Amino acid sequence: MQLNELVSANKIETEAMAALEKSILYYQGRPVGTVAAVDDSSDALNYDQVFIRDFVSSALLFLIQGRTDIVRNFLEETLKLQPKDRQLNAYKPARGLIPASFKVIVQNGQESLEADFGEHAIARVTPVDSCLWWLIVLRAYVVATQDLSFAYQPQFQEGIRLIMELCLVHRFDMYPTLLVPDGACMIDRRLGIYGHPLEIQSLFFTALRAARELLICKGNQDLVEGIDNRLPLLRAHIRHHYWIDINRLNAIYRFKGEEYGKLAVNQFNIYADSLPYYELDKWLPRSGGYLAGNVGPSQLDTRFFSLGNLMAVISDLASEEQSQAVMNLIEKRWEDLIGDMPMKICYPALEGDEYRIVTGCDPKNIPWSYHNAGSWPVLLWMLAASAAKTNRISIAQNAIEVAELRLLEDEWPEYYDGKKGRLIGKQARKYQTWTITGLLLAKQFLVNPANISLVSFDPLSFGPASRACEFDLGSVDTMLLG
Amino acid sequence: MQLNELVSANKIETEAMAALEKSILYYQGRPVGTVAAVDDSSDALNYDQVFIRDFVSSALLFLIQGRTDIVRNFLEETLKLQPKDRQLNAYKPARGLIPASFKVIVQNGQESLEADFGEHAIARVTPVDSCLWWLIVLRAYVVATQDLSFAYQPQFQEGIRLIMELCLVHRFDMYPTLLVPDGACMIDRRLGIYGHPLEIQSLFFTALRAARELLICKGNQDLVEGIDNRLPLLRAHIRHHYWIDINRLNAIYRFKGEEYGKLAVNQFNIYADSLPYYELDKWLPRSGGYLAGNVGPSQLDTRFFSLGNLMAVISDLASEEQSQAVMNLIEKRWEDLIGDMPMKICYPALEGDEYRIVTGCDPKNIPWSYHNAGSWPVLLWMLAASAAKTNRISIAQNAIEVAELRLLEDEWPEYYDGKKGRLIGKQARKYQTWTITGLLLAKQFLVNPANISLVSFDPLSFGPASRACEFDLGSVDTMLLG
Repeated sequence: MQLNELVSANKIETEAMAALEKSILYYQGRPVGTVAAVDDSSDALNYDQVFIRDFVSSALLFLIQGRTDIVRNFLEETLKLQPKDRQLNAYKPARGLIPASFKVIVQNGQESLEADFGEHAIARVTPVDSCLWWLIVLRAYVVATQDLSFAYQPQFQEGIRLIMELCLVHRFDMYPTLLVPDGACMIDRRLGIYGHPLEIQSLFFTALRAARELLICKGNQDLVEGIDNRLPLLRAHIRHHYWIDINRLNAIYRFKGEEYGKLAVNQFNIYADSLPYYELDKWLPRSGGYLAGNVGPSQLDTRFFSLGNLMAVISDLASEEQSQAVMNLIEKRWEDLIGDMPMKICYPALEGDEYRIVTGCDPKNIPWSYHNAGSWPVLLWMLAASAAKTNRISIAQNAIEVAELRLLEDEWPEYYDGKKGRLIGKQARKYQTWTITGLLLAKQFLVNPANISLVSFDPLSFGPASRACEFDLGSVDTMLLG
Repeated sequence: MQLNELVSANKIETEAMAALEKSILYYQGRPVGTVAAVDDSSDALNYDQVFIRDFVSSALLFLIQGRTDIVRNFLEETLKLQPKDRQLNAYKPARGLIPASFKVIVQNGQESLEADFGEHAIARVTPVDSCLWWLIVLRAYVVATQDLSFAYQPQFQEGIRLIMELCLVHRFDMYPTLLVPDGACMIDRRLGIYGHPLEIQSLFFTALRAARELLICKGNQDLVEGIDNRLPLLRAHIRHHYWIDINRLNAIYRFKGEEYGKLAVNQFNIYADSLPYYELDKWLPRSGGYLAGNVGPSQLDTRFFSLGNLMAVISDLASEEQSQAVMNLIEKRWEDLIGDMPMKICYPALEGDEYRIVTGCDPKNIPWSYHNAGSWPVLLWMLAASAAKTNRISIAQNAIEVAELRLLEDEWPEYYDGKKGRLIGKQARKYQTWTITGLLLAKQFLVNPANISLVSFDPLSFGPASRACEFDLGSVDTMLLG
């Protein structure tokens, strides 16, 4: 790095840190999170809230910087917002859910926190990802502080247990994957990601792994066994049914329909005519591959979704070989996936009738905008963590180089539009916190790749479920921190 | 009726009864159900099974005919197939589910029943409707036999309780409606009915009402309270958010998008551009209306689905006024909904890009065929029950007249294709049991409209939830049978 580059890189970081500082929300005198955006130029709407999913990159960055108190406060306060009672009551959030967001309200001079579980949200979407991200942040806190006793506190054990019960108890799912309504994650508007979308499955797998490390076995044998049963099944299901590369596409392309019985090869009854097989034939690099966006009855969503794929790499949901193939794909399809602003939230956009039918004519998700193949700088941190995990550091370096000068100049927009990401998002706020922390955190992962241990996982190694409860607290300790 | 008409009507019934007799499945010497079809001309595939949803019309007919033993046996045997253990294990059906179907298998000269929860099904769909229909049949049996003690047996109380727990415990729903994957009901292939489809909600409401009558309060206070809480909320939600008539369409058409907060009018963020408002402007009779097929984030499926609408009329989910409006619609749009074979499963068909994108290019669900706006004679019984409930008997009489001669001549096909239903379904089996019983049962409802008490419900009348457990067994008895 040359001196002038170093200076400008330092300037970016200094400015970013200053902006981040401004986003910190205080509650009863303690820092408890970061608000979504500090953009004085536009109406606050719901940007004055701490969104759980938005805070993740802030949390990881604070942990790396040794500012663990804010993450600790965040975890403690959000845990209190989790419904603890069994609800047979409609219109109340289910036991175990963590809200999408919260904010400080003042009544009679008294501060309190108000949670939103989607009741205020546009289109009333359920924030399924919140409880999964919460577990991931909790585990990162424990990794960073080596303070397992924090997670062993009874109220935290209860919180973990309730999330696991919510997710593990079966209802109408017939697979190891989680069934969710449309818009239940970062893509919180209708975009054809109902059913079993990849993003939720990747976060579910990561959260299961986090819970497995943090849950005290004693008294939770059934849950621990449930996790141990689920992890390998979920992994196998995703690695097999969601994987797309040219070999797999060849197999799918020649699938027979209408197979009945347990031995069906085309289990989901996918019709090749529903796939853009001719585009994929051209687009898929020989050595590249990725996990599909969604799989359901006669449904294989072949769009590439970044968050789901990158979190699959980080959490070891994707195999070593598949992880390398995902990184190959990003490298070979740089112009499409990174372009002039890393990185596309999904690719390609839904256009024409597909846009109209699948989004319900959502004017915010017009083609190549917002969730519909817009570019989101926050994804940089997941790209960097994936690059570090797969020893493909140069991919992240190049992406950061593309992003950082523009982000400062453009005042940290939430997202970018266009095929190459050269238009500042039509409705993007500026000084969006996760844009700022996305870049800063990505850089931290390159400075010290060991930092990815906050969110990454080694291959599954524990034995069969029946052995799940053999070790006591001491040995769990060793396993986690050893 | 003239003599020659009477003779041919008698002939139809005689032939239909003979065909029905052939469909009865015996297990260990006892009749336990009716197989889906007895069509010697084509391969059995899965038509040698008793499908729970297919058996409903057989069951109601048998009850009217006093052949209660077969229904009793069916209920006892299917109850044994219901998983009773709490499953944290993926790939096992959830506790409380009733299978889609079962068949008799013989091993070493021993007969046993094999259940299918969707593991064998094409595309591996979950049969959510089975447990709801099962409750409806159980309650019909009790109404017919006046034998409440049958449902009060411990194993039946447990069965009811498990279904209620499965359905009432919240997961990621934020509404009183049930979240299900695509194809979870009679329409068991992908057709855009993921999320909160009307068919499931109507059956859910009816099943809740059945369970409320049958569940012993003592020891089940929490569930009874849950049911009492849910029923009025579910009813209000469906009556408000699913209803479409010209006034409501006017309101929706002028909805503002992107409303944030609890007071949003356009709660689901529907964009009028996504609706065929110009078609509906023409199609909706001034006095007619119906419940939409599905409601979700930015999603209002304006297709008319017969089963969901008719069951809403029968179960009192639709208001008295809405029920009359549904019958008006059927009468005014006779050519579209009844045509030459009653009645369309939904209307209109998905065509062109919509067909391609929403069904995943399903060759069985091409426009105006099978589930995609094909005509299904089984729906006749629900039409007749709705007609009886709303005192619009002539509608059912006319529909039956259209159907009966052709059904015998065409050898009872499963479904018909085309805009008017004049083509025998492309892949329809003949001697389809529910086609036979659909007609016979419809006629029974006209002969004696009081028979609809097997499936119909009066307006909700019990008090607030807190009073749910005041009455003892004796008073429940009086309430149900009084």
